[in-house]
Amino acid sequence: MKVSLGRKTLLLAHPVLIVGSYDKDDKPNILAISWGGICNSGPPSITISLRKSRYSYQGILDSGAFTVNIPSVDQAAEADFVGIKSGRDMDKFKETGLTPIRSEIVNAPYIKEFPVNIMCKLIKHEDLGYHTQFIGEIVDIIADESVLNEKGMPDIKKVNPIVYDTISKSYFGIAEKIRKSGL
Amino acid sequence: MKVSLGRKTLLLAHPVLIVGSYDKDDKPNILAISWGGICNSGPPSITISLRKSRYSYQGILDSGAFTVNIPSVDQAAEADFVGIKSGRDMDKFKETGLTPIRSEIVNAPYIKEFPVNIMCKLIKHEDLGYHTQFIGEIVDIIADESVLNEKGMPDIKKVNPIVYDTISKSYFGIAEKIRKSGL
Repeated sequence: MKVSLGRKTLLLAHPVLIVGSYDKDDKPNILAISWGGICNSGPPSITISLRKSRYSYQGILDSGAFTVNIPSVDQAAEADFVGIKSGRDMDKFKETGLTPIRSEIVNAPYIKEFPVNIMCKLIKHEDLGYHTQFIGEIVDIIADESVLNEKGMPDIKKVNPIVYDTISKSYFGIAEKIRKSGL
Repeated sequence: MKVSLGRKTLLLAHPVLIVGSYDKDDKPNILAISWGGICNSGPPSITISLRKSRYSYQGILDSGAFTVNIPSVDQAAEADFVGIKSGRDMDKFKETGLTPIRSEIVNAPYIKEFPVNIMCKLIKHEDLGYHTQFIGEIVDIIADESVLNEKGMPDIKKVNPIVYDTISKSYFGIAEKIRKSGL
C-alpha cells in the first residue's frame, strides 16, 4: 500500500559534493552540499543549490567560479564537518587539516586530499525560493592518478565516493556492482 | 599526483531516477535519468535534465507535470531498460511489466512497483544547450508502507536505491552506513 508523505525534499541517495570558493578577502572556504549534480553535457555543466545565508554564496557570485570536490568514504568526517560549520566563524581548511590549492584555470580553490576535483566557471544563477541554483560550466576535472582505471578515468571503487541520506542524516558507501548497463 | 581529465560530465555517484509522463495521446511513458536531484526546499523542488530528442520531452512540457520514481536494487534491469529504449518505439510499461498509475494530484503516471514516487508540477524549464533543465515543484511523495521506518519516513536500507556510474556504465547498491551526521 502507498502512503502519502506530503511535500518533502527526499531523494534517498544524494551525492556528497564539497564546494570550494574564495571570499572577498581571497580566503578559501568549503561547504558540503547534497543538492547538486550534472545538468548539461554541452557545455558540460554542474548545478549546485545553496541558501543565501551560506557564507560561500557571495564568494561564488563575486569570484564567478567554484570547485566541486568529491570525497572518499574515509573523508566522511571532514565532509560532514564542513557541511555543519560556517566559514564565517572559522577557517574550515585549518580546522579539518585539508589543503586548499589555487586552481590554475578558475578563481577558486580545490581540495588537494580529495580524489576528484571539478573546476567550474559560474555561468548562471537563479533564485528559486529558499535556495539559489548556481550553474557552473565544467572547464576541467582533475583526479589523483591513484584512482584512475586503465583508461585513465576515475574508477568508482577506487574513488569510493559517499552517498548521503537526508532522512537518517547518515553517510553510506557504494556497494558491489549490481549490473552493467546495456548501453 | 593530480591528472587533468579535461571537460567532462562525471560525478561518479549519480542517482537513478525514473521519470514518468503522459504523451499527447495520454499514453504513459517512462525514462531513466541520472542528471537530476533536489534543487530547492521552498517550494520543495526537483530538477531533471533531458535532451530535446527524448520522447518524454514534449509530453512533460504539454502536460506540465511529471513523476520521479525511485527503483530498488532488484529493479535495476527495468531501470536500465527504460533508460536505453525510447517510448517512440514501444510501450515501456508493457515491455517491462511495470504498472502505470494515474496520479490523483498531477497529470502524470507513477510506477506502482517502485517504492518511492515523487509527484511534480512543472514550474520552469530552461534550455541549457544539449540538455533542457526542468524544475518540478514536489506536490506530494508517496511510498510503499513496507519501506517506511518507525517515524513513517522511507528507510534507505529498505528502499535499497541504486547509484549509477557513468564511467563504468554500471549500477551499484548502497553499502553499510559509514557515520551519522553531526547535524
